[in-house]
Amino acid sequence: MEVVSINRAHGGTQGVYTHQSAETGTAMTFAVYVPPHAPSATLPVLWYLSGLTCTHANVMEKGEYRAACAEHGVIFVAPDTSPRGDDVPDEDGYDFGKGAGFYVDAVQEPWAKHYRMRSYIERELPEVVAANLPMADMARQGITGHSMGGHGALTIGLRNPDRFRSISAFSPIVAPSEVPWGEKALGKYLGPRDGGDRASWREYDTCALIEDGARHPHVLVDQGTADQFLVEQLRTHRLAETCQSAGMDATIRLQAGYDHSYYFIASFMAEHVRWHAERLG
Amino acid sequence: MEVVSINRAHGGTQGVYTHQSAETGTAMTFAVYVPPHAPSATLPVLWYLSGLTCTHANVMEKGEYRAACAEHGVIFVAPDTSPRGDDVPDEDGYDFGKGAGFYVDAVQEPWAKHYRMRSYIERELPEVVAANLPMADMARQGITGHSMGGHGALTIGLRNPDRFRSISAFSPIVAPSEVPWGEKALGKYLGPRDGGDRASWREYDTCALIEDGARHPHVLVDQGTADQFLVEQLRTHRLAETCQSAGMDATIRLQAGYDHSYYFIASFMAEHVRWHAERLG
Repeated sequence: MEVVSINRAHGGTQGVYTHQSAETGTAMTFAVYVPPHAPSATLPVLWYLSGLTCTHANVMEKGEYRAACAEHGVIFVAPDTSPRGDDVPDEDGYDFGKGAGFYVDAVQEPWAKHYRMRSYIERELPEVVAANLPMADMARQGITGHSMGGHGALTIGLRNPDRFRSISAFSPIVAPSEVPWGEKALGKYLGPRDGGDRASWREYDTCALIEDGARHPHVLVDQGTADQFLVEQLRTHRLAETCQSAGMDATIRLQAGYDHSYYFIASFMAEHVRWHAERLG
Repeated sequence: MEVVSINRAHGGTQGVYTHQSAETGTAMTFAVYVPPHAPSATLPVLWYLSGLTCTHANVMEKGEYRAACAEHGVIFVAPDTSPRGDDVPDEDGYDFGKGAGFYVDAVQEPWAKHYRMRSYIERELPEVVAANLPMADMARQGITGHSMGGHGALTIGLRNPDRFRSISAFSPIVAPSEVPWGEKALGKYLGPRDGGDRASWREYDTCALIEDGARHPHVLVDQGTADQFLVEQLRTHRLAETCQSAGMDATIRLQAGYDHSYYFIASFMAEHVRWHAERLG
């Protein structure tokens, strides 16, 4: 991996790196904050998956995670949200294509070649991190994210409960199969809901995964009550209902007056970092 | 003043407002964070003056001040760095004109009409804040800033020690009369250094103000040792020498490995907010 930038921050280092991804067939950029630590120490890793339109940079600039990561000794990794580049197919609109990979492995053309964000996040990028950051303890990983990235964190975490000891989300899309953002993205990346790939939609839907038996003992969700996307796209109550029906404990909190912005994320980020740190040891 | 946006953040409200400025003859935008507080409480006000190229938005997005302001009960006001608009004269280059008002009242044409950032910050905007934010206790004000804004904070604070009980700065330009950024800006806004306006240069130069007798009992400066502008433009040692010669106490700290970016500001922002809060009561 190549260094794009390194800045000292809160006693540690905020890095930005690129590498050539075999999964996406493109160069991919990601951010890693490494807190101050003893030379021989190994530290837990918290993944942060970003929302629609974002790159690695949004949370790096606005997420206010570094003070808490420095305090608790947590490495923070923020990937991009899609493949990038002139030869990556795209569409008009902020909610599909570049900046909107939805953390799926696409099977429909023309998306299947490059849009492989599931395998990129689940397999390839962790290998890059492990190979290049010797202080990263890959046996202690947690995952979080915002909106589309909250969907990514919950679905990836629920499919890989042994790898991710803790899952949290800010304003996640909890049932993409049932809302416009998800119906559009899953339909285009995976094919029709009622086609032969119906099962694959359910692998990318938090509520469907839980209905189908996925479980995790440590789930935390924060959702602002003034979020402009709550009613139509996020539908947090569906997650609460699904967990209750499934008998799965999860902490789902409604935060009065907060909207969908990074001001909301930043307000609760330190608490999420601490919550993960407590579970990652 | 008109509301541009309001976002709930860290239990308080991050607002952005515009008003028509009589000083600059333009609409001016500024940001105010009001922390959670009791309905009858009045709170101290911390001014933050931004650096070259910035608007009110940079520190609002990257400055990481809200958690500390919420903890200590401090209102945080971030103005723009120059007048804006199609009828405001400008020049090519990031270090003069729009985004580079240098917190002076220009006397040279064509700048004199709109570039009145000294009077705007010292007089007009405080009146707007006092008139519109009844919880703001204007008897308890502190001031800080970054780079050009650190210059602004130090010079405005030193000229008005009764109004600003505490002054701090990140990476300030401490002697603009002696460095390229300042020589260019002061020369164009005020006229030649050796002309009839020589005295006015000294009103806009922290070291010159102290040499000429200005004093303040509470000054804190943080400067990164890896700052790319330290040697040519910032010259922190000049401030240390000047304070020593003048017998003025000031806390001037060199922070190892930090550069000129917002990562540096954010790393020490909470400490500055607490430092001001302790002095503002």
